[in-house]
Amino acid sequence: MLKNINRIIPLQLKRSIMTNNNIPNSTKLKINPNKQFIKTPKDVWSLTNEAAQAASHNTKNKGRELINLGQGFFSYSPPAFAIEAAKNSFDTPLNNQYSPTKGRPNLINALVKQYANYYSKVVDNFGPSNVQVCTGANEAILSCFVGLINPGDEVIVLEPFFDQYISNIQIPGGVVRYVPINAPENLCSQVTEGKDWKVDIEKLKSTINEKTKILVLNTPHNPIGKVFTREELLEIGQICLANNIIIVSDEVYEHLYFTEEPFPRIATLSPELANITLSVGSAGKSFAATGWRIGWIVSANADLLKYASMAHTRICFSSPSPLQEACASSIEYALANDYYKKMREEYKHKFDILCSVFDELNLPYTKPEGTYFVLVDFSKVKIPFETYEFPQDIQNKAKDFKISYWLINELGVVAIPPTEFYIPEHESQAETLLRFAVCKTDDYLEKAVDRLRLLKNYL
Amino acid sequence: MLKNINRIIPLQLKRSIMTNNNIPNSTKLKINPNKQFIKTPKDVWSLTNEAAQAASHNTKNKGRELINLGQGFFSYSPPAFAIEAAKNSFDTPLNNQYSPTKGRPNLINALVKQYANYYSKVVDNFGPSNVQVCTGANEAILSCFVGLINPGDEVIVLEPFFDQYISNIQIPGGVVRYVPINAPENLCSQVTEGKDWKVDIEKLKSTINEKTKILVLNTPHNPIGKVFTREELLEIGQICLANNIIIVSDEVYEHLYFTEEPFPRIATLSPELANITLSVGSAGKSFAATGWRIGWIVSANADLLKYASMAHTRICFSSPSPLQEACASSIEYALANDYYKKMREEYKHKFDILCSVFDELNLPYTKPEGTYFVLVDFSKVKIPFETYEFPQDIQNKAKDFKISYWLINELGVVAIPPTEFYIPEHESQAETLLRFAVCKTDDYLEKAVDRLRLLKNYL
Repeated sequence: MLKNINRIIPLQLKRSIMTNNNIPNSTKLKINPNKQFIKTPKDVWSLTNEAAQAASHNTKNKGRELINLGQGFFSYSPPAFAIEAAKNSFDTPLNNQYSPTKGRPNLINALVKQYANYYSKVVDNFGPSNVQVCTGANEAILSCFVGLINPGDEVIVLEPFFDQYISNIQIPGGVVRYVPINAPENLCSQVTEGKDWKVDIEKLKSTINEKTKILVLNTPHNPIGKVFTREELLEIGQICLANNIIIVSDEVYEHLYFTEEPFPRIATLSPELANITLSVGSAGKSFAATGWRIGWIVSANADLLKYASMAHTRICFSSPSPLQEACASSIEYALANDYYKKMREEYKHKFDILCSVFDELNLPYTKPEGTYFVLVDFSKVKIPFETYEFPQDIQNKAKDFKISYWLINELGVVAIPPTEFYIPEHESQAETLLRFAVCKTDDYLEKAVDRLRLLKNYL
Repeated sequence: MLKNINRIIPLQLKRSIMTNNNIPNSTKLKINPNKQFIKTPKDVWSLTNEAAQAASHNTKNKGRELINLGQGFFSYSPPAFAIEAAKNSFDTPLNNQYSPTKGRPNLINALVKQYANYYSKVVDNFGPSNVQVCTGANEAILSCFVGLINPGDEVIVLEPFFDQYISNIQIPGGVVRYVPINAPENLCSQVTEGKDWKVDIEKLKSTINEKTKILVLNTPHNPIGKVFTREELLEIGQICLANNIIIVSDEVYEHLYFTEEPFPRIATLSPELANITLSVGSAGKSFAATGWRIGWIVSANADLLKYASMAHTRICFSSPSPLQEACASSIEYALANDYYKKMREEYKHKFDILCSVFDELNLPYTKPEGTYFVLVDFSKVKIPFETYEFPQDIQNKAKDFKISYWLINELGVVAIPPTEFYIPEHESQAETLLRFAVCKTDDYLEKAVDRLRLLKNYL
């Protein structure tokens, strides 16, 4: 090491270094990283993608396309009106520079217009102070946690849960407490509904203590596809009201519901619930643009929202300006042209295509009430768990990882094992399930159906 | 409250709520936010913008344009090649969807090509594992801190500092320790140079203890405009090496240096320094696109970088895809066309325009060696501090806030008071200075010169 230094340091400096007794014999850096990043088993996305990549070369998949219904990204472009708005945005010089940390006025105004429809029944003067633009819904949720959590504060997460919640709660020192949404008993024998998946209310009540600060809700729910009913939301909401608990409601699939009743938003069920709720939305899900990274937080309680805003300012400072302008135009277009309703019709059709093969094979699933995912039970499929060759990474995981691996290798179809959305002790609730995404073209879904039909050879 | 609930809850549920003794009499939410966001005096950006907005209507500014050399955003568009690349990116469907969390291959490859020029002298095989794409340099720096800091770990920040560092260190529970870059003694009497601003090495040594994990470096330095010399970097680097301290080097102005020697990067001064350093870069600064929010971390030590990568995955998941593609093309273009060098020439010219008026007025400044900022001393300007009417917010701040306020109101020129980059006990070091930004068109800078020339009436 000193040899290198000799080449470049002037004499005076060299002397001070040479006499510094602290120079280490070894220059090996000892890294003590944030302890939450030390244990990092491979996540479901890496494992599934690796399995898919490897399987694309196996004998069975040779000459056929791998059908990927795994991760929830779109196989097609955002609508033409959104793409056009995006391209045009670059022509205005200031659209390329820092945005206000709250978000660009055009996007804030579009969001106020969109959400005033829902919030005006519970609050007066819903306006710009009730909206915060973020860099995707992920950063929006993190901003809520960082704005509100002090080390040791507890956050209740309903299980199954989106994996990012956990580390986002831990970053500011929060402690995660899990409350199950119990799977229906007849999950493996018949088609079930969202309402058959029930939050364990007794467990929720017993988990609450003086440290409980936030409850995280997700509706429409990924991966269940459940839309929480008004009654369910009111019951959970009352418990939060009674215990001074803030609700962070992840509603990124808000426009993707297929129930007869409009999607119930907990913040709009009463002025009291509006007062304790931060709701998170996403342009990526609504405009097939998951890579644009524009999301937002909406709250009737501007005094609560401001802490999330302060956190956002520190985390990302501001969000991508040209894409904010693109989203502003897209939301205005959507509101003027009933776009969300049309999108829902398209998705209903997509689910009809995909679920037809599960009906045909008599494989039970949970009727998709929302999101673009469907959970399907594979108990009836005869998979040679004992004799099949699984890689070590998969061998150590729950049964659904093996089902997923088998499906990729035997049929060339990729789906996500949902035990990743559980803590280890509760994995058994979901170990016979796979999650399929339908945010793909109809043609692609038809190909998926043809491929999945081959499952009949294994029933 | 109960009245509202009665309207919407079915009987069975109502009963369970009615018998719940925990229902609060008042539904007023008690918010106990993250304690770092409780005390929030207005920041310099808000104060200056508010002062500017108010002053634009005063008698003196009536009929003349307000000249804003405050915040460092560009008054013009990114170069045509960058805009074209951005627009084209939307035509590829996948460019609108989630990117890999590490970054898009095209951008990673462009960054590897760019940085291999500097890093190949200290490491073999500089490649994709040495680069992490982030959502702007701010999120890149936060990712370094979140990836590495455990609560109670100490981080050394050189003062003056960019204000975002502080909260970014505090979010994962880090503790900030300040070490001054002492101002030159003749700051108020003559033109000074970057090297006259000296890191207090003794204070640095005495601040280090077993909890010290990271030192944050910023070169070219905002707001001083100082480019750290090789000798300075080696001295600081040796101290870090001797004490197992990781260096986070904020080099967002890396292409904006005006010294004869190429900009020295601490990570490239020796293999040992390469091993302990994470360096942060930004597309916003290099392509006049601060609103695109694309930044990155580069490190020769992939084992160190991976913790920042894990943090980034949790903070933002992935970065805006179309803008990553736009930056990839822009970097390739820049490398092939000597764009960075041409940009430096343009900036030298911009500084020549602006500094000419300070020379003419004999107002001392620190010669800009890098960044697009210049610090100017206003000691010689006769400002009626005692009799001038300052708003309460400004009255409570250091003298430079008053100089800034006076300049906005009397001359219609906006500049930033730099004591915001100091802790309160050290504000006196900078209270006679203002920071001017030159990332504006030449015409605009000429107008600024004409306006600033009016200062001669106050000397």
